[in-house]
Amino acid sequence: MQDLDQSNTSSNLGHIRIVMVNTTLPANIGSALRAMKTMEISQLVLVAPKTYPHPDIDALAAGATDLIDKIKIVDTLEEAIEDCHLVFGTSARSRTIPWPLLDVRPAAELALKNITEHQQEVAIVFGREDRGLTNEELALANFHMTIPVNSAYGVLNVAQAIQIVCYELRMASLNICSAETTNTSTDKMPVTDQADMVWDEPLVTQKQMQEFYPHMEKMLEDIEFLDPQNPRLLPLRLRRLFGRIQLDRMEYNLLRGVFSRVQAMSHGTWKNNNNHNED
Amino acid sequence: MQDLDQSNTSSNLGHIRIVMVNTTLPANIGSALRAMKTMEISQLVLVAPKTYPHPDIDALAAGATDLIDKIKIVDTLEEAIEDCHLVFGTSARSRTIPWPLLDVRPAAELALKNITEHQQEVAIVFGREDRGLTNEELALANFHMTIPVNSAYGVLNVAQAIQIVCYELRMASLNICSAETTNTSTDKMPVTDQADMVWDEPLVTQKQMQEFYPHMEKMLEDIEFLDPQNPRLLPLRLRRLFGRIQLDRMEYNLLRGVFSRVQAMSHGTWKNNNNHNED
Repeated sequence: MQDLDQSNTSSNLGHIRIVMVNTTLPANIGSALRAMKTMEISQLVLVAPKTYPHPDIDALAAGATDLIDKIKIVDTLEEAIEDCHLVFGTSARSRTIPWPLLDVRPAAELALKNITEHQQEVAIVFGREDRGLTNEELALANFHMTIPVNSAYGVLNVAQAIQIVCYELRMASLNICSAETTNTSTDKMPVTDQADMVWDEPLVTQKQMQEFYPHMEKMLEDIEFLDPQNPRLLPLRLRRLFGRIQLDRMEYNLLRGVFSRVQAMSHGTWKNNNNHNED
Repeated sequence: MQDLDQSNTSSNLGHIRIVMVNTTLPANIGSALRAMKTMEISQLVLVAPKTYPHPDIDALAAGATDLIDKIKIVDTLEEAIEDCHLVFGTSARSRTIPWPLLDVRPAAELALKNITEHQQEVAIVFGREDRGLTNEELALANFHMTIPVNSAYGVLNVAQAIQIVCYELRMASLNICSAETTNTSTDKMPVTDQADMVWDEPLVTQKQMQEFYPHMEKMLEDIEFLDPQNPRLLPLRLRRLFGRIQLDRMEYNLLRGVFSRVQAMSHGTWKNNNNHNED
């Protein structure tokens, strides 16, 4: 589904920049680039990085080195966000200034809504490894954003936090795009792609299932598992069981084939090699 | 908001285990523990890890070393999941067997729903760094789970993937807890009220299903529906089909009873009234 609107997704996500302030460890910059690229976000702005450039950045950004060429380096956070409409400052909950605070999911939804509807430029700002953003820096944000972590152990490192934020931004983008394409949904079961196997069979209809259940019950009568005079709860249980699955056409034909084979055996019309009676 | 129901969250998340198969790099195990702890998930099971123990695990798991003591080591994936009701195999979309596939968000919602309503045990299985899970391992899962990444660069490493999956599990748990404060949920399967019917049977575990499939296949051999020399895709299709259902104990016994009856008929050890041969 999301593959259909890849281009919209990337153009939406193109309005987002990740800003890292005063980062100390080059490895965190490399990991951030990789996290960003997996989610199709490509603009990183570094505010006065402590160590840049550095080979660890390239090493950790394996496969995302094209984003290194796009990195912008600036001296202050003000410069990093000056052309943005919407700025989120990330913060651990406990030690921040009072400010409008959003969890990352609604924050991402707000960001994508503003990008889609108003072509806004959005920045997500991450602080230093050891002490985050200063109160002055946090005051430059429209909103503060937090990731709901285990309160007894709230120590996501900056690259992990960027991974989750970028993931939520991508999810918000995909959700907006799929809502936009008026949901070209199919009645097919979503399965793993594999071109040479056709597994995405259409699901059978209730009408077909109304032939399936009597067939199964007749088979169970034939093997004397079901007493038609006293079926008890068996037919109901089987409807409940197979009603939960939603069979696809292949599975439906397969099971009906099994029923027919069992019936043929019970009628003696299938020459079973185990019996060696007649041939 | 989520602070109110922290205790419910942690008890829900206590039903989840992360399973890493054949992990090569100790650093990935350490990072996984840290990612888990930030999201309050504490059970890691390692299936035949390449290097364990190792000081890099402790180093990367900074602050999450209490989870190291809880790690379980097993030889096979079957052992890791034998007491689980619901198993998700993580896979990159492109190179896996066809199987019911869920994005990580709906997968996490399903997991937490089944934990909350049925006290299920849930496993999320992650594969090798270089080549993921084998098709045989993927076939042990009820569902495959994927993270919707940039299709041009789908290279989340295993620790990053675990971070996102644990985050979504925690979000699903927090959402359920906040919804629960108004709902008085029961631990029974939601069915139409009818006092004299006991429908809320416990669901069977993966270990029981590992007896179910061979029984079904033997039965299909006996009626010559399955050729053991050339089973083609049939065993896989049946695993996929019944893996979607999650049988309860009653249904499980019922189906195994059917298999045994069919076998007895095919062996001529069941006196079938339709045949009128011997009695």
